[in-house]
Amino acid sequence: QQFAIPFQQPSHCGSEKYFDISSLSCVQCGINQVRSVSGTSCVCQVRHRVVSSNGGAITCQKCPADSKPGVTQDGFDCIRCPGGLNTEGKCQCPPGRILVERNRNGMLLDEAICETCNGTEPSFAVPNLFGDRCVRCQETYINTTNSCECGQTNMPAGGLCFPQNNLPTTVVSVVNYAQLAISVQSVWFAENMQAVAAACLIYSNLTACQALGNMCVMNLNSLSSVNNDACGLFNTIHRSTAALGSAQMISFWRANLPWLYYGDQAGLASRVLFTESFPTSFSFKGAAQNTNIQFTAAVYNTKGNFLKWQNVKGGTLQLCPDTVIRLNAAYRFGTTYRQSCQIPLSKILTDFPEPIFYDIYMDFSSGNGQKSLWAVPVRNLNLQYNGQFVNQGDNLNNWYLTRRIFLVDTLSGRENTLASQPKVIRVATKITISIQLEPNTQKGVIKTPLMTVSYTDILVSDPDTQSVSVSFSVEYEMNQSEAQIQTDIALGVLGGMAVLYSLLKTASWKRQVGSPLIDLQTVLKFLLFYAGDLANVFFVVTVGTGLYWLIFFKAQQFVTVLLPLHVQEKRFVTYVGCAFTLKAVQFLHKIISQLSIDIFFIDWERPRGKVLKTAEGNGDIKSAPAPVSIWRTYFVANEWNELQTVRKINPVFQIFAVLFFLEVVGFSNLALMDPSSNLSRDPQSYQAPWNLILRYGVATSMWLVIGFLQIIFFTVFYERFVEDKIRQFVDLCSMSNISVLLFSNRCFGYYIHGRSVHGHADTNMEEMNLNLKREAENLCGQRGLLPNTDIQTFQVSITNKMRLQYDRIREPLSRRTGPSRLLDSSANPFEQSTKAYHTMNKFLGSFIDHAHREMDYIVKDKLLMERVLGMEFMEPMEKSLFYNDDSHSFSDVLYYGNEATLLIFDTLFFCIVDIGTQDFVLAAVLTYVQQKVFKLIRNATGRKNLASKTLVDERFLI
Amino acid sequence: QQFAIPFQQPSHCGSEKYFDISSLSCVQCGINQVRSVSGTSCVCQVRHRVVSSNGGAITCQKCPADSKPGVTQDGFDCIRCPGGLNTEGKCQCPPGRILVERNRNGMLLDEAICETCNGTEPSFAVPNLFGDRCVRCQETYINTTNSCECGQTNMPAGGLCFPQNNLPTTVVSVVNYAQLAISVQSVWFAENMQAVAAACLIYSNLTACQALGNMCVMNLNSLSSVNNDACGLFNTIHRSTAALGSAQMISFWRANLPWLYYGDQAGLASRVLFTESFPTSFSFKGAAQNTNIQFTAAVYNTKGNFLKWQNVKGGTLQLCPDTVIRLNAAYRFGTTYRQSCQIPLSKILTDFPEPIFYDIYMDFSSGNGQKSLWAVPVRNLNLQYNGQFVNQGDNLNNWYLTRRIFLVDTLSGRENTLASQPKVIRVATKITISIQLEPNTQKGVIKTPLMTVSYTDILVSDPDTQSVSVSFSVEYEMNQSEAQIQTDIALGVLGGMAVLYSLLKTASWKRQVGSPLIDLQTVLKFLLFYAGDLANVFFVVTVGTGLYWLIFFKAQQFVTVLLPLHVQEKRFVTYVGCAFTLKAVQFLHKIISQLSIDIFFIDWERPRGKVLKTAEGNGDIKSAPAPVSIWRTYFVANEWNELQTVRKINPVFQIFAVLFFLEVVGFSNLALMDPSSNLSRDPQSYQAPWNLILRYGVATSMWLVIGFLQIIFFTVFYERFVEDKIRQFVDLCSMSNISVLLFSNRCFGYYIHGRSVHGHADTNMEEMNLNLKREAENLCGQRGLLPNTDIQTFQVSITNKMRLQYDRIREPLSRRTGPSRLLDSSANPFEQSTKAYHTMNKFLGSFIDHAHREMDYIVKDKLLMERVLGMEFMEPMEKSLFYNDDSHSFSDVLYYGNEATLLIFDTLFFCIVDIGTQDFVLAAVLTYVQQKVFKLIRNATGRKNLASKTLVDERFLI
Repeated sequence: QQFAIPFQQPSHCGSEKYFDISSLSCVQCGINQVRSVSGTSCVCQVRHRVVSSNGGAITCQKCPADSKPGVTQDGFDCIRCPGGLNTEGKCQCPPGRILVERNRNGMLLDEAICETCNGTEPSFAVPNLFGDRCVRCQETYINTTNSCECGQTNMPAGGLCFPQNNLPTTVVSVVNYAQLAISVQSVWFAENMQAVAAACLIYSNLTACQALGNMCVMNLNSLSSVNNDACGLFNTIHRSTAALGSAQMISFWRANLPWLYYGDQAGLASRVLFTESFPTSFSFKGAAQNTNIQFTAAVYNTKGNFLKWQNVKGGTLQLCPDTVIRLNAAYRFGTTYRQSCQIPLSKILTDFPEPIFYDIYMDFSSGNGQKSLWAVPVRNLNLQYNGQFVNQGDNLNNWYLTRRIFLVDTLSGRENTLASQPKVIRVATKITISIQLEPNTQKGVIKTPLMTVSYTDILVSDPDTQSVSVSFSVEYEMNQSEAQIQTDIALGVLGGMAVLYSLLKTASWKRQVGSPLIDLQTVLKFLLFYAGDLANVFFVVTVGTGLYWLIFFKAQQFVTVLLPLHVQEKRFVTYVGCAFTLKAVQFLHKIISQLSIDIFFIDWERPRGKVLKTAEGNGDIKSAPAPVSIWRTYFVANEWNELQTVRKINPVFQIFAVLFFLEVVGFSNLALMDPSSNLSRDPQSYQAPWNLILRYGVATSMWLVIGFLQIIFFTVFYERFVEDKIRQFVDLCSMSNISVLLFSNRCFGYYIHGRSVHGHADTNMEEMNLNLKREAENLCGQRGLLPNTDIQTFQVSITNKMRLQYDRIREPLSRRTGPSRLLDSSANPFEQSTKAYHTMNKFLGSFIDHAHREMDYIVKDKLLMERVLGMEFMEPMEKSLFYNDDSHSFSDVLYYGNEATLLIFDTLFFCIVDIGTQDFVLAAVLTYVQQKVFKLIRNATGRKNLASKTLVDERFLI
Repeated sequence: QQFAIPFQQPSHCGSEKYFDISSLSCVQCGINQVRSVSGTSCVCQVRHRVVSSNGGAITCQKCPADSKPGVTQDGFDCIRCPGGLNTEGKCQCPPGRILVERNRNGMLLDEAICETCNGTEPSFAVPNLFGDRCVRCQETYINTTNSCECGQTNMPAGGLCFPQNNLPTTVVSVVNYAQLAISVQSVWFAENMQAVAAACLIYSNLTACQALGNMCVMNLNSLSSVNNDACGLFNTIHRSTAALGSAQMISFWRANLPWLYYGDQAGLASRVLFTESFPTSFSFKGAAQNTNIQFTAAVYNTKGNFLKWQNVKGGTLQLCPDTVIRLNAAYRFGTTYRQSCQIPLSKILTDFPEPIFYDIYMDFSSGNGQKSLWAVPVRNLNLQYNGQFVNQGDNLNNWYLTRRIFLVDTLSGRENTLASQPKVIRVATKITISIQLEPNTQKGVIKTPLMTVSYTDILVSDPDTQSVSVSFSVEYEMNQSEAQIQTDIALGVLGGMAVLYSLLKTASWKRQVGSPLIDLQTVLKFLLFYAGDLANVFFVVTVGTGLYWLIFFKAQQFVTVLLPLHVQEKRFVTYVGCAFTLKAVQFLHKIISQLSIDIFFIDWERPRGKVLKTAEGNGDIKSAPAPVSIWRTYFVANEWNELQTVRKINPVFQIFAVLFFLEVVGFSNLALMDPSSNLSRDPQSYQAPWNLILRYGVATSMWLVIGFLQIIFFTVFYERFVEDKIRQFVDLCSMSNISVLLFSNRCFGYYIHGRSVHGHADTNMEEMNLNLKREAENLCGQRGLLPNTDIQTFQVSITNKMRLQYDRIREPLSRRTGPSRLLDSSANPFEQSTKAYHTMNKFLGSFIDHAHREMDYIVKDKLLMERVLGMEFMEPMEKSLFYNDDSHSFSDVLYYGNEATLLIFDTLFFCIVDIGTQDFVLAAVLTYVQQKVFKLIRNATGRKNLASKTLVDERFLI
């Protein structure tokens, strides 16, 4: 058995069938019957009366056409008619008369009577609406003429009668829809405007006054020189009733009239908005927590009746449907609220059969604890004042504030009858409530909120497919100029210090390159240093700003600060952009400097034995010194190569930890523009939009805190108890009897003293182990450069002479890369470089051993100021200077010694990506890729540099 | 000027003040006036007439108490009353009479008349509702008694008159709210039930029948032996009108009555649901795309009127508010839809003043293209059949399906008057539409959908704070038993193969450890191998299943498969859990095996010179062979140490890439239970819930694809053109004149032949460079173990004898870790181990050099089968076997050679975390931490093992 039925509906059954609501199908009507208007039952044909009916089926009979041709109103009897019959076959009386079919006691008459009502005093009777009884006529007729006629000189309108008055005799009932360039002859206005205006003015009818006001609001409060449109009439009445005085002590509010306008004086808007503060203060936290904004609306219908006071919570003003929890989030103080959606026109037409008008107030408690209301002014963007859209400009002084709003007007656009579908409807498509904080009160005091409403005219063509996009938002702003000034001051002060510091660095650098000239390179170098320092300044300022907003906005008790708006964020984003760009310049500069350092491994090992060799040519056996194994140098170079991109922290862990805290633990929720400082949000609740500054604040603080914790962990725990790569390398130098001399600048560099205390390191396992053991048992000397010291690492400042000598020895090596020359063609480059290596080894060894009197050096401690400023005060004139350096500052030429720069660069990179995309995951991925790419470049190029400077074959640097 | 007003409202103005709707304040009424009922105007006091009124103010005058004490109905005149006055000071007539104040022509009478209506034929008049006219009385009175009285023997009810009939004379108008254990004397039922039942039965009034049906539905369709409650009456009438036949050819649908029930035969439910398929088929893609489910409802109001046909789109059945787009997503075929929210009771009470009833149908096109409707059965979970909740069980045969539903019933719970607030309301809090696919049709054919409705009774105490949680869902299911059987078959077959393969591995392992006994360790080893293989089986099956659903569900054109429900996912999750656990066992097993391998670096270097030493004691100078530098061994050991956790892919990049594609590119959206296969979703649109299987499918395919791409990139490009760590190590061995022999099992291992082709490697840079150059120019021999070959890497299978010798030499080393013994106390352990090192070096060197005739070896190629099975067929009896091994399979003892295991383990780890938390970011973070932890453990422990086995001091392994 199939449970399927054909689809049939009442309108398709035809005139002789009715729709059986039980079986949902069309069923034939009985004899003499036709379908009723609703289509779900049958009625008798015209001129037929009902013989019997029991609620279900009826039977019909034709009335005798000669004797009683008419059918009674109830349809059950036939009757003779005094006049004619109407189309329904019932009796019809001329206008102004009533039809009487029954006696007073219900006896049916044979012939109906058309009775004239007695309109004179004291009866004052007219036919009622149905035309079956005489009732007292409308009071205004009696008042005006003492009869039920309005008379020639008076004016009847809308069922009332008005005496002569000074209102315009004709009214403009055409509604102009400016956005569509369409005018509609509004039936509502045509029928009622004249009447309500007159009733309001002449009879002081409160409902009529409200109705007139509503018409003006439906005309978008637009004022012009025309005085007979809705607002013109309203204003005429407003002026002419000045004697009545004002309501509620508010001068713009005339007694008996609705309060529609604030005055039109220039500059009134700013006085209204900024003069008085709202009496209740708001607070995010604590015992006095108050995040509840209470808006109350006085609700009127089109006819001017007051319906009720209504709290606007629960979506009264929000056209987009949503759950009550999310809708009410709009009225939680501090929550930036944005809601928008598309609504089908058909839904609007069903949900809003007639417009409802709202006068919006904000609740507060007056002094005596009584509930009071604070009027909320409305900035109607579509208001035309003498043809100008005065409210659309940013100039507050031109604004013309109003009071009453509606959400949807489906009434004024109806053209022929009130029951027809409107031709055009008006929807409040964009409502924004702006709340401004009173600055410097620290108490959560706000100014008068402003409601901005923008209406859209929609031509109704096909309601089922058309849709309207509407939005509702609540925004919080405060004057940010002070914060901006403070930021600028901080930038100025710190920027100035950055200049000084960069100058110092440049001076230090000049000394280190050993050149006194101020040339283009010096200026360039200064700019590079300045870029780095300025980047730090921008970074400090932006992080400070971000943290400021994060802490002060989220943790405030009484509301003191509000977040900058999206447009105000631009400046901040620019600062972050500057910080990133400058930091990138500094970062690249550092990497490039690191890639061009001079480095040499000094091998202290001397041959220990002789090797017997058979000389070529003859068979003589010669003894030669045994070669010193190069493998220790390989080992040290290999380790140095591995050290290049070792960092103080684990950068990948850093990214994952940041991502974990932001996305999984939920710190990212702190960047939402709401007062909550919870890390997790209920998915059912409203999610406020992101704030870029808060995102930056959260992200950078995560980066810095986790980075700092990592640095502490690695320096305090890991390097002390697990492994310290830098320390290991220095130890390795000692064990392998190899010293490292490296120049980061022409005349400045670092020296790691690695001369073995055992004399020889190029030996077998037995002896190595023995050496280690002896050292552990303190059976040998200390490792330091100076006798009986431990200090192995030094900063060196060499004399120009020394550097020249160094360069002279290195010359054959650097020539390798140049074009081959004819000069000295016999010596092949390979032999030359080996020779240079040995010469250099010997020269540097003897230099360290004080063997050159003219190129001697002295070892000294750095002064405190020298350490602080990072600059050497003494110039190496006669002797080179070796500064004791316990802190392994040679790591400055590695990633290791530049952790701050790298961390800040990564942080800024992460934040820049996030600002661009608002996606922490993408930022994390790209930061990783960035780290990886730079690490690869640094490693590969550093390895090449190492190979070329130390002559160690690149293939051993693995 | 403050724009603040005190809050006043109509109800608080007191009786002598009215609420001025213009100034929104209370204003004193005039003399002789009191506030009107609405509170917004004044009316005359009792016994006062209105003297003048102009729509605004009125004036009142007391009626003369002696002559004309009454006030007319219109309030403007005084009149003498025949009877008494009512409380409003107007004339009152006895019941059954009408009050006449004016003549027929409107002339006011001096004294009002109380007129009796003529109730006899032909007038049949009774007073109308207002008591001011006589009108024809209700037809049923006339039908029954031919007068306007119902008479003694007949039954008047609800304004109708019924002749005697066989319906019960009393009805149960008490509604039982079983969930609250509360009964309410329902005023709606009390007033109307008897009447509608009688009108339905006696007069066949269709509206009355519908109204009776609605009462039954409000009683949740519950049937019991009581025959005078709503459903009892309905059933009585249903039975007694059997002669009328059925409507629309459906046997359960009696003509004139609504169709409420399917029959109560056992097993009817399954016939209704599964016998017929829905005629329209659905398809996700292509030209015939049809994802539109059209439900149409016949809508009735409480009184039984048919309101309209309504498409249920736009939230007709969804109580939770949402945008139309999201609401309509419920009716997109294939989209699993779940919506739930809390609705305040106050909103429900305003939105649903009276219940609306829906008969749900599904649209389809019948053969001739005409629109037809397919009845959707309802499973009402709260239906009681003889006191049993028959629909709550899972047993389909007990179900009693029904048709009509309502969403909110605020009517039946009203106790005293229909205008009072209901005491209890009923809400359909859970509506589920289940759609089952017809299996094996491949054409998107579905069975009859089932609508499951669950009602909740709510006691109304404080509507402003109470709220109801409601939900609406659409679910798609299909019979998954076939898929399950297929999975089981795949598991069974592959599991069996896994047993065989594990047995083979165990056999191979037995040979490699050189022990023929089957002991407990063998069984354990078998289980470990089996764990790994079974893990692969589970992994393959689960990935296959995931991909199957992903591809077949998302890419299907005609709907062929639907996703398993959440409860059906459990089995799958169990499989994934098994795969992960077993893989973890295999992974740990591999790591632990790798941490206990035997390794030795054979140094081929021989002393090149003599060293002159001054002997202790006397001053003699002796010459001794120069020590061979240990630094090459250090270098090789160091590199080996670094190789340990090198992987074929970059695991961190892997995680970031997976995260990028899942979260940023949006592949995770493929795991949503909707038919769309777009990677990005409009945030405005509905987001379907996640499906675990799809998530697993997407995540694993991402892991495997990216992993595979990485492996290809590294093997094809990176290792060929940038660097190949494994190859580099082998080359380093050659350059440093060091061979590596390592045993992964007792008698099986790997050999890397590193004997320098230059004889010496322990030399200076000059000679090293020369050597490199000579080799580049092919001026020396090849590096292979066999002359003129290149093969340097071998798998070795050594004889037991050889192994015993190896162990004997190693004994002093392994003893180091044991307790110290008195035996041989003279030799200190340090010397012993150095001696053992030299002995081992010499022994292994001579072994490779074929110096031991009794422990010789032969070099051969592996057979194809041996390669495929990973097993050696020959047992090394007399001679050890060296198998040429081009593919560097020694990396099996490193991470590098176990990429598949590691990748699968990481994948499963990622997926397990995701299944548990549904958070890819968390999964990524934890996977990274897991990788890092295991890498650290593997590195640290591997380094210890390397140091202990090779005697290289741990401090050089940096």
